[in-house]
Amino acid sequence: MTTELERLAVRLREFARVRDWEQFHTPKNLAMALAGEVGELVAEFQWLTADESKNPDPGALARMRTELGDVTLYLIRLADVLGVDLVEAAQAKLEDNDRRYAADRYRGSAEKAPPSSHDA
Amino acid sequence: MTTELERLAVRLREFARVRDWEQFHTPKNLAMALAGEVGELVAEFQWLTADESKNPDPGALARMRTELGDVTLYLIRLADVLGVDLVEAAQAKLEDNDRRYAADRYRGSAEKAPPSSHDA
Amino acid sequence: MTTELERLAVRLREFARVRDWEQFHTPKNLAMALAGEVGELVAEFQWLTADESKNPDPGALARMRTELGDVTLYLIRLADVLGVDLVEAAQAKLEDNDRRYAADRYRGSAEKAPPSSHDA
Amino acid sequence: MTTELERLAVRLREFARVRDWEQFHTPKNLAMALAGEVGELVAEFQWLTADESKNPDPGALARMRTELGDVTLYLIRLADVLGVDLVEAAQAKLEDNDRRYAADRYRGSAEKAPPSSHDA
Repeated sequence: MTTELERLAVRLREFARVRDWEQFHTPKNLAMALAGEVGELVAEFQWLTADESKNPDPGALARMRTELGDVTLYLIRLADVLGVDLVEAAQAKLEDNDRRYAADRYRGSAEKAPPSSHDA
Repeated sequence: MTTELERLAVRLREFARVRDWEQFHTPKNLAMALAGEVGELVAEFQWLTADESKNPDPGALARMRTELGDVTLYLIRLADVLGVDLVEAAQAKLEDNDRRYAADRYRGSAEKAPPSSHDA
Repeated sequence: MTTELERLAVRLREFARVRDWEQFHTPKNLAMALAGEVGELVAEFQWLTADESKNPDPGALARMRTELGDVTLYLIRLADVLGVDLVEAAQAKLEDNDRRYAADRYRGSAEKAPPSSHDA
Repeated sequence: MTTELERLAVRLREFARVRDWEQFHTPKNLAMALAGEVGELVAEFQWLTADESKNPDPGALARMRTELGDVTLYLIRLADVLGVDLVEAAQAKLEDNDRRYAADRYRGSAEKAPPSSHDA
């Protein structure tokens, strides 16, 4: 994992340890907490038009930033308790997407590619 | 943003550009895509006990890793189009949580702290 | 609960019983399954414009209908194991919203009302 | 749609109409609002054990009921603007699941069935 993400993972471990919260931080519970935070993030966008979402007012942008921070923290913590390196997982998926979505075949199309052999 | 996250953000920009997908990548749409991927991640855990979630079998762990990769990619892309630095946002939120959840007050308790003044 | 929802709840109980799935159907697990299905539903809308979402093509509409069915089934099942009457819960919330969002104050505005005293 | 769900759908139409909120109630936006409410519902369960989720304390149960009400309202409203009958969609999906998950093959197993031909 990248140095900065690793540093955050270590701080989150300590944050949980000193509060005796490791008992709550099972992967299952952290996945739910992540879903809850993503729900709050989505709610910030729900009534905005596409254009408004590109130029949120300062108050909305500050709330989005706070929710993005929450999502990032739970994502790092979940990956850490599972022993998954987020950057490597993201790179692997990006390379897979690069193969599945050939640029000339999917240019300007929101169509979904058939599942990769990696998904099976 | 951290070097490795920044590198991924740049690769995602290029991935969207060569496919002419920037038109689809509004913050609103990306927040939805993130929610969809988190739904797939949560689904991997839904029938597992807490203990099983700590020791997923290799097939389940591989699927979780793939979903964590997807979530990370959309999170990076969403933050990028909004101009938000994920690591800074996470650090700010962690410091806020550190203040709100005093270790001796919340030790071993899953109780929620009252909203911070930053949430208002 | 309404007759038709009640009938579905009874069929879902039987569906779980004959498969010995009651062990998996804790409220916690069912809430996760609901979140997973809502993720699939949201994914159907993620790249559509607002206008396209109002007039989905037949294939997309069929997939939305399938996902709406899944969401409804898990919602009914979750409410059933918790002993909550969905129609009563929805009516109570609608009346609460009616009070909070006075028509003349919130006309044409997507602004959020302050939390009701019922939310505390 | 069932009489009681239909009655709620009509009340929600009127609720939106008198506030001039129909402009916000595109299927896309309502799907996001539904996801946001499901996020709040999941958050009520995230730190509970499986057993605790079966016997929530009265305060937690009241909050779950409120969130179930919110989810139900947005689900009804989304189905209404799409012209989908929720009860019929749920029945169709239940019958499909009945075929896919043969009771003797899946007894006591949380394994996922292969996709039905209806999913393709």
